Amino acid sequence: MATNQGLKIAVIGGGSSYTPELVEGFILHYKELPVRELWLVDIEPGLRKLNIVGNLAKRMVEKSGLPIEVHLTTDRRKAIEGADFVSTQMRVGMLDARARDESIPLKYGVIGQETTGPGGMMKALRTIPVILDVCRDIEELAPNAWLLNFTNPAGMVTEAVLKYSKVKSIGLCNAPIGLIKQVSAKYNVAADRVYAEFVGLNHLHWITRIDVEGEDKLDDMLTEGYSAKNVPAREWNPEFLQSLRAVPSYYLKYFYMTDAMLEEQMESFKQGINRAEVVKRVEEELFELYANLELSEKPKQLEQRGGAFYSEAAVNLMRSLHNGSNDIQTLNVANRGILDFLPDDASIEVNCVVTKNGPLPLPLTKIPPMAKGLIHAVKTYEQLAIDAAVTGDRALALQAMVHHPLVPSVDVAVRMLDEMLEANKEFLPNFFTK
Amino acid sequence: MATNQGLKIAVIGGGSSYTPELVEGFILHYKELPVRELWLVDIEPGLRKLNIVGNLAKRMVEKSGLPIEVHLTTDRRKAIEGADFVSTQMRVGMLDARARDESIPLKYGVIGQETTGPGGMMKALRTIPVILDVCRDIEELAPNAWLLNFTNPAGMVTEAVLKYSKVKSIGLCNAPIGLIKQVSAKYNVAADRVYAEFVGLNHLHWITRIDVEGEDKLDDMLTEGYSAKNVPAREWNPEFLQSLRAVPSYYLKYFYMTDAMLEEQMESFKQGINRAEVVKRVEEELFELYANLELSEKPKQLEQRGGAFYSEAAVNLMRSLHNGSNDIQTLNVANRGILDFLPDDASIEVNCVVTKNGPLPLPLTKIPPMAKGLIHAVKTYEQLAIDAAVTGDRALALQAMVHHPLVPSVDVAVRMLDEMLEANKEFLPNFFTK
Amino acid sequence: MATNQGLKIAVIGGGSSYTPELVEGFILHYKELPVRELWLVDIEPGLRKLNIVGNLAKRMVEKSGLPIEVHLTTDRRKAIEGADFVSTQMRVGMLDARARDESIPLKYGVIGQETTGPGGMMKALRTIPVILDVCRDIEELAPNAWLLNFTNPAGMVTEAVLKYSKVKSIGLCNAPIGLIKQVSAKYNVAADRVYAEFVGLNHLHWITRIDVEGEDKLDDMLTEGYSAKNVPAREWNPEFLQSLRAVPSYYLKYFYMTDAMLEEQMESFKQGINRAEVVKRVEEELFELYANLELSEKPKQLEQRGGAFYSEAAVNLMRSLHNGSNDIQTLNVANRGILDFLPDDASIEVNCVVTKNGPLPLPLTKIPPMAKGLIHAVKTYEQLAIDAAVTGDRALALQAMVHHPLVPSVDVAVRMLDEMLEANKEFLPNFFTK
Amino acid sequence: MATNQGLKIAVIGGGSSYTPELVEGFILHYKELPVRELWLVDIEPGLRKLNIVGNLAKRMVEKSGLPIEVHLTTDRRKAIEGADFVSTQMRVGMLDARARDESIPLKYGVIGQETTGPGGMMKALRTIPVILDVCRDIEELAPNAWLLNFTNPAGMVTEAVLKYSKVKSIGLCNAPIGLIKQVSAKYNVAADRVYAEFVGLNHLHWITRIDVEGEDKLDDMLTEGYSAKNVPAREWNPEFLQSLRAVPSYYLKYFYMTDAMLEEQMESFKQGINRAEVVKRVEEELFELYANLELSEKPKQLEQRGGAFYSEAAVNLMRSLHNGSNDIQTLNVANRGILDFLPDDASIEVNCVVTKNGPLPLPLTKIPPMAKGLIHAVKTYEQLAIDAAVTGDRALALQAMVHHPLVPSVDVAVRMLDEMLEANKEFLPNFFTK
Repeated sequence: MATNQGLKIAVIGGGSSYTPELVEGFILHYKELPVRELWLVDIEPGLRKLNIVGNLAKRMVEKSGLPIEVHLTTDRRKAIEGADFVSTQMRVGMLDARARDESIPLKYGVIGQETTGPGGMMKALRTIPVILDVCRDIEELAPNAWLLNFTNPAGMVTEAVLKYSKVKSIGLCNAPIGLIKQVSAKYNVAADRVYAEFVGLNHLHWITRIDVEGEDKLDDMLTEGYSAKNVPAREWNPEFLQSLRAVPSYYLKYFYMTDAMLEEQMESFKQGINRAEVVKRVEEELFELYANLELSEKPKQLEQRGGAFYSEAAVNLMRSLHNGSNDIQTLNVANRGILDFLPDDASIEVNCVVTKNGPLPLPLTKIPPMAKGLIHAVKTYEQLAIDAAVTGDRALALQAMVHHPLVPSVDVAVRMLDEMLEANKEFLPNFFTK
Repeated sequence: MATNQGLKIAVIGGGSSYTPELVEGFILHYKELPVRELWLVDIEPGLRKLNIVGNLAKRMVEKSGLPIEVHLTTDRRKAIEGADFVSTQMRVGMLDARARDESIPLKYGVIGQETTGPGGMMKALRTIPVILDVCRDIEELAPNAWLLNFTNPAGMVTEAVLKYSKVKSIGLCNAPIGLIKQVSAKYNVAADRVYAEFVGLNHLHWITRIDVEGEDKLDDMLTEGYSAKNVPAREWNPEFLQSLRAVPSYYLKYFYMTDAMLEEQMESFKQGINRAEVVKRVEEELFELYANLELSEKPKQLEQRGGAFYSEAAVNLMRSLHNGSNDIQTLNVANRGILDFLPDDASIEVNCVVTKNGPLPLPLTKIPPMAKGLIHAVKTYEQLAIDAAVTGDRALALQAMVHHPLVPSVDVAVRMLDEMLEANKEFLPNFFTK
Repeated sequence: MATNQGLKIAVIGGGSSYTPELVEGFILHYKELPVRELWLVDIEPGLRKLNIVGNLAKRMVEKSGLPIEVHLTTDRRKAIEGADFVSTQMRVGMLDARARDESIPLKYGVIGQETTGPGGMMKALRTIPVILDVCRDIEELAPNAWLLNFTNPAGMVTEAVLKYSKVKSIGLCNAPIGLIKQVSAKYNVAADRVYAEFVGLNHLHWITRIDVEGEDKLDDMLTEGYSAKNVPAREWNPEFLQSLRAVPSYYLKYFYMTDAMLEEQMESFKQGINRAEVVKRVEEELFELYANLELSEKPKQLEQRGGAFYSEAAVNLMRSLHNGSNDIQTLNVANRGILDFLPDDASIEVNCVVTKNGPLPLPLTKIPPMAKGLIHAVKTYEQLAIDAAVTGDRALALQAMVHHPLVPSVDVAVRMLDEMLEANKEFLPNFFTK
Repeated sequence: MATNQGLKIAVIGGGSSYTPELVEGFILHYKELPVRELWLVDIEPGLRKLNIVGNLAKRMVEKSGLPIEVHLTTDRRKAIEGADFVSTQMRVGMLDARARDESIPLKYGVIGQETTGPGGMMKALRTIPVILDVCRDIEELAPNAWLLNFTNPAGMVTEAVLKYSKVKSIGLCNAPIGLIKQVSAKYNVAADRVYAEFVGLNHLHWITRIDVEGEDKLDDMLTEGYSAKNVPAREWNPEFLQSLRAVPSYYLKYFYMTDAMLEEQMESFKQGINRAEVVKRVEEELFELYANLELSEKPKQLEQRGGAFYSEAAVNLMRSLHNGSNDIQTLNVANRGILDFLPDDASIEVNCVVTKNGPLPLPLTKIPPMAKGLIHAVKTYEQLAIDAAVTGDRALALQAMVHHPLVPSVDVAVRMLDEMLEANKEFLPNFFTK
């Protein structure tokens, strides 16, 4: 702990548009999570945004009257030193890189997506070395800190940290909390009266149990599915869902409706629509709002942004770790035998009890047999891609690309990999400076 | 044993064009495998072929001067009663069903193949109940017999027997023996000086070790691949092969070169070429030869047929089981922990020591990490399809179809399944008579 | 649930001297655990005690003013019908059998103990068939009920139920709650601020982590050990404890101090002291108190009895199951991979999150390597003894006895088994009526 | 290979009385195992014996007329350099240390034995660092050599090498080959017509299958047991053996008949009989024979010595490794999942196929459930003792001693360890020079 009077928190990528939500969380939950120092860190090119959002943060804190110090800095080591929690929410290569991740695969007839497929792989290659660099700092300057990772692809980034550093790390996604919120709204009960069992990986999970106040509501949900703002809503085939006996994550549409999803992406691409561009515009509008010196609270518009609940998930997790509250949260952690066909150090997305000593994954009560193959296929790709990111080994990168279930052939993989590595050259020193 | 003077062997599907090779094997290896009774069984519609090939078998035996009795029958129970070995080489629905298996998927832009994909699944649905029916007879009439299964999809059929009967069963494929022959020819050494390690499933294996007289020749083979007559030869990408560090089965081209393989199939289909039709013609020519009363040996032309070495593999296996010779053969058997991510009762293709009490699988010395996902994905499909075959449950059949890696979406799976089930109605009493 | 107005609870062995504590618990926690019907069941020979304790229960409830109905009966099926919870606290053969369990082994120079060793094995042989008989009733009359088993040997009884019935069952012991109470008293904190990690089996656990308000206090406890009233207190060797890095259960003294414990037992035996006799006397005194019609609360003296906290543990567990409170309790449940060297259906003693759907075991963060062998050795004995109890197979009973780590040889096992089976003849119909 | 004309073999502890048997083996099997250089190495104090036995070896070779060079040396590195096979047969502390291993435990009422219990543990502590030192030389000077380890406790020594060096190592014991010889003699068949399945660890195995020419003879053997010269023959209880359904190793008498074996040892000890002394005398007589310059063959008397067949086992193994003969031998190798409750790197005694690339363990077809606990208990001790040997950590040594199933209490362990460490001070630099 920074001092015995409160916690020190470092947010890597603090200039993000999500930051006001996080600050709101710290203010609301100050009693159980007494933050004394909040360090927002960003890189030089993000300085303008850091200042805008950081100043909003300061105004929010001031209005609250709480003794939280907000620091804005580009000196990462200073921010990390002695921190109790470090959170990361970065985008190496920024939205331009995302636009490339989403568009290049389309040329090869392959899904273009920022967290899975060839696009997600490129994001992993760019991001993992940077995160491991952050970990080196944490190992040295804040060895007892918890690293809360929001940076996508969160499952792969978390697994890379588990394997290649000594930092205590947890990966977080907003999808599980989103499902809980959706169910609690539908049945008009408090969120803690909903118990949902998640099986699988980050952005590749199936929900096999949904209890509302102890009553099984899976059948209800199987007739509905669940959806999210940042993934096009498509209807699931009802016969398929009934025989699956599990609600698939909306990201599973890329795998279960590959043809239709691809067609839709192609169509949007032809029309010049591009999710990265849309997000860019939304972000600009947000920062315009943030810059308004009259504003001293989180603007409503932020909730329209895709990543709703990310910050709520983060604050919940920090609070439970700090207090050892032993409540259940859905997190990305080491497998440790939960999915018995994956290695112990594979990251999975699973319900955990959050103890003072960290999250303990809960055993699964049901695993849909049909999910095992796809989980293992994607994890195989993830392991290869993580090792490629760490080593900069093109052979591993090729094997990762070939073995991704969305890639149709070795031939396509070879050509697509060439173009995508070249397009990301600037952000892949491991691959290009040797 | 039938009597203490020799063995009784029952061949289910004895009217097959492969039978002369089997008979040749029995004659050549009579000393170590003293066959006294050879029962060739077939169903009524196959009686003409059974008589032609059976009479050739009788002429072959007569010429050899050995005391082997050849029986031709449509009474399966009589053939099985007291048998030491039962082998199956059947084709439920015959070549017409195969033609449908290979052509219907093409309409949906999906690979049409007789042992994998939607085609292989239909073959499994037709075949497994028939084989399990044979098993009921063996359990009753020859409980100590070994069932040697050559019927494709051999891995799935073997797994169905392991799970749903008490019969001692082994699955056999000609691909491993073919690879050994190819290597032994290339290096001009005896086959027993070649040691190759196979990893994976039937028609889905990788070869990770090829030693010739104790010397590692994997690198040589990685520059070549291995091929077979009944799969179109395509070149492997050399960069891919080098980084894979394993020689993939030629059936893996359906997965690693899906786009090109599909294009080729489409092209052939447009030109009216159809593998089932080709095979039909070859078979007719063979039976014309067999019918020649002057012929009393296996004709050379049989070796041109795709399934070369099948019968050699069968005779080798029977010989080793009979004598407990403890030699190494590549077989389809229960996993029993060899691939630690698959259940113990999953069938895998693996090197085994053939003891008097049956084959014992050898631990693998290398498993290519990239292969795990695909193996698990295909095994997931196989398990679902086996259970669908046994129960006639359409929901399971849909889940199997959806989760096959070659099927692009739930939507395609639903429509293709409808058409294929309907087209196979006659051979799927489990699905249609309830 | 019995009705929508409250829960029905059946206590098998309701005439036990522990019952007033249980009733006190139901009264105290009525709000979260609204008991409407409490059925105390016992067998004919226990009718006198049942009436005494049952009438005390009625007076306690009356004084509380709560709408709890107390029923006394010898009709087990009526008590079980529609119950929400069934708890068992029985002693087949009563204290006389215990006296034999504790004394016969001493003749052979072997530890005489009621829950482990030859004595515990006899208790298991007598008890398991009776419990499974109760389970048959629950399966038929209250299939959704939870069975809370307090009957020793609780680990073996629980495993027998897991393997040989469909009843949802949990085993409970007072040792873990006792340790928590001891620690919370020592550090003067609330019990829920103590987190202790238990590794092993019922009456064979090691505590590897003791956190008090998130601070590691293991080293403190290693200098102290923990003890209990019903096991002679002996000092642990400090060098041993330091290098073990875990606090052993006091039952482990039978294994780690076998020679001294045996000597002590021998000495007591010579002096005519006998734990069963002591307990008998204590019980008689308690029933004298209970019979006093002026008494309408749990008498203080009950707390002196060995099984302190048993009823508290039971009420806690029922409350959490009823409300799905997701708190952590140390329970005896199916292993499910937690100790990776034991089968999935072995019972272990482990921290669990108690969800609405039952307890989910938490993964262990530390397993002392030295404990594995002894855990596996005792579990081996337990599995054999359970199967012996179910089948009445003397060969299995002999193997169980031989393989118990406290039994010095086959020869001793054979002779001791003969005598002990004979002495328990009346209670072992499985062994003697065939 | 030393040169392309033959193999180089280094025998560490070449002055052993067993050496003539080994030399005889090399002469008999020269054709399949063409030894060109045989290096017999020993330490200074063993020089006299090395010269006697080495000169006999030279006379034996000369008589054979084969081009084998015999070298005698105390320069271990020269002997190892470029070797194809290194075998070890050493006794650190010589027979005097053995005498102490066997006698000190008796003072504490504990079995005194040279390969298990406290005696075996001391032997492990003395030997493992020396063997690992040999391994350092092999890693540097003969990295492709196979290390064949005969040095007891062979299982622990082999496991230490597997864990703490990169040397390719196999442990060998004469017990399995002895059993095969006994059975082949009994049934008057060739040894290769006997198939026996061994389950467990070195000196702690059960035989669960004995087939003679494919026929199950287990029941025959269960009425007999098997015995050996260097372990007092005691009768097994027939009821026990029948219900065990496995033939226990004669070393298991120390565990299954602890009381009687201990009594016998005490009796012998009182009478001044001491196995180490007996062996000493036998050895002296042998060396007297060997010194006779007329002798140029292995004297018959050597066969009376306890370790019969050790050298035959060694030559068989070298021959199979050299030729890749793929035959089955019972060896001590890494577990690799064969016993699923032990770690992959635990050494076990198991049937293996000996390939050119080393032995591959065969899956077990039957594991007696009663054996699991004892196997795990002994392996737990072994792991702790190995780590104690490598580190010289007294805490680990104490934990090892306490957790050996033959040690009755922590108290005895502490006192016995003190005395035994002190008595072995000279040979335990890891423990005493820090």
